[in-house]
Amino acid sequence: MNDDRYYLKQAVKAACEGIKDGGGPFGAVIVRDGKIIAKAGNRVVLSHDPTAHAEVLAIREASDILDSHDLSDCVLYASCEPCPMCLGAIYWAGIRRVVFASGRSEASSAGFSDNFIYSEIGLDPSERNIDFIQIPDAGGEEAFRIWEQYEGKIPY
Amino acid sequence: MNDDRYYLKQAVKAACEGIKDGGGPFGAVIVRDGKIIAKAGNRVVLSHDPTAHAEVLAIREASDILDSHDLSDCVLYASCEPCPMCLGAIYWAGIRRVVFASGRSEASSAGFSDNFIYSEIGLDPSERNIDFIQIPDAGGEEAFRIWEQYEGKIPY
Repeated sequence: MNDDRYYLKQAVKAACEGIKDGGGPFGAVIVRDGKIIAKAGNRVVLSHDPTAHAEVLAIREASDILDSHDLSDCVLYASCEPCPMCLGAIYWAGIRRVVFASGRSEASSAGFSDNFIYSEIGLDPSERNIDFIQIPDAGGEEAFRIWEQYEGKIPY
Repeated sequence: MNDDRYYLKQAVKAACEGIKDGGGPFGAVIVRDGKIIAKAGNRVVLSHDPTAHAEVLAIREASDILDSHDLSDCVLYASCEPCPMCLGAIYWAGIRRVVFASGRSEASSAGFSDNFIYSEIGLDPSERNIDFIQIPDAGGEEAFRIWEQYEGKIPY
């Protein structure tokens, strides 16, 4: 727990330091075998990239360093509870342990949409605030058919 | 609807073409003012990047081209229903219309975790398959306090 607290404070530090550079108030670090291997602050506005949340950037950096999309031996520390996008990224990376400081309601109080997106994601696509239109006969199954038959595929 | 079908087929094409290069069976295009401005296939394994889903890559490319994290005047076409990570990215990008071909259950049938992640995301953090530990007194509020007081901030 003391180690958790130390790494978490590094994530908070990344969040605080990034603000004056133009980042949002979020930070994350990724730890493997007791070492911080990636550290990032939010860069959405700075990088003109809506996906440049601290957690996503830290995951991308760690994956790049490890030459693998599999971060199952890593722990992610985040200054605030990950939003649905970052949570999805955490699952896809195979990360099995996440430690965070503030909660999603504190992010909402600061003006961020985390809570709203959490509520939207559970809805049926047809009930969401965004128009979701499925055209089931547009040939989408072709990609899965090719994948199924492709002998060189690497599942992930 | 004919235009929708055309753009959607381009997304499916990107999905199909990417497989033999080592990508997963997913593709996406982003359209603005009737023009495709970004197009991507999945590159998770290829790029060693668990976040390199077609939708995320297309969003990043479009944002880069437009020099803005705001894609509210864009439509996203995806060969398959976006996973929670991509859905989050769509919300953060401000995209208001999404057209897709296959559904999440078809992705699951092909061996992908979309359905599982959708079910995990709605759970309380303490009930998820991944350990989520909150340390609320680790100073996380400091980042929001600095953000609140920072006059140069650009909300997003």
